[in-house]
Amino acid sequence: MHMGNWLDEIKWDADGLVPAIAQDHETGRVMMVAWMNREALERTAAEGRAVYWSRSRKKLWPKGEESGHVQKVKSIRTDCDADVVLLAIEQVGGIACHTGRESCFYRELRDGEWSAVAPVLKDPKAIYG
Amino acid sequence: MHMGNWLDEIKWDADGLVPAIAQDHETGRVMMVAWMNREALERTAAEGRAVYWSRSRKKLWPKGEESGHVQKVKSIRTDCDADVVLLAIEQVGGIACHTGRESCFYRELRDGEWSAVAPVLKDPKAIYG
Repeated sequence: MHMGNWLDEIKWDADGLVPAIAQDHETGRVMMVAWMNREALERTAAEGRAVYWSRSRKKLWPKGEESGHVQKVKSIRTDCDADVVLLAIEQVGGIACHTGRESCFYRELRDGEWSAVAPVLKDPKAIYG
Repeated sequence: MHMGNWLDEIKWDADGLVPAIAQDHETGRVMMVAWMNREALERTAAEGRAVYWSRSRKKLWPKGEESGHVQKVKSIRTDCDADVVLLAIEQVGGIACHTGRESCFYRELRDGEWSAVAPVLKDPKAIYG
């Protein structure tokens, strides 16, 4: 029986981070990938909503704190190497991306170019204004 | 109009890599996350099957070269930051994980422990033996 802390089993990288994938728990759509440090993952599990680590702002980033687009966490998985986290989430507001699209993965490779293939659902100015 | 190379738009990290998510194109299941360098992504697009960069073996890793569990690529997406790649794939053999499970994300956090929640479909010895 494992008696240690589940957070110790994660293989944090040299910066103490792991990538975290947020996937819609109903549609299976991959909404975004962000990063978590230990505290972010601990808070995500404790609070039942996604808390990331912002590498650019160098601080904890409770998803939706500005936009209201909170991600309610339904389950947390890790992979065989324990170096990636997969969240099944409910996306409040139906928008994960700061561009106002449902998913951050809205660009697809077509004929040698990245083409936007998903609509903007809400003007970012209206989200963050 | 963008005239550069689509590979130049990817934000490669300090090691020249990006994480790549392989997602089943039909079920939406996230099968695995591995890494790609420029050549791996270029070959993935050109050959229509996933080619990763093995960080442990430090060489290109055409998925399935040993196991036969090739990933046929249906589409390639990137996110708003262009620092993650998302592949929609068909998983030949129905097994992505070296443990013989469908997906590498078979451990779920339950009551403060990582619990295996998906069955082994094939003995790894039979896959790699």
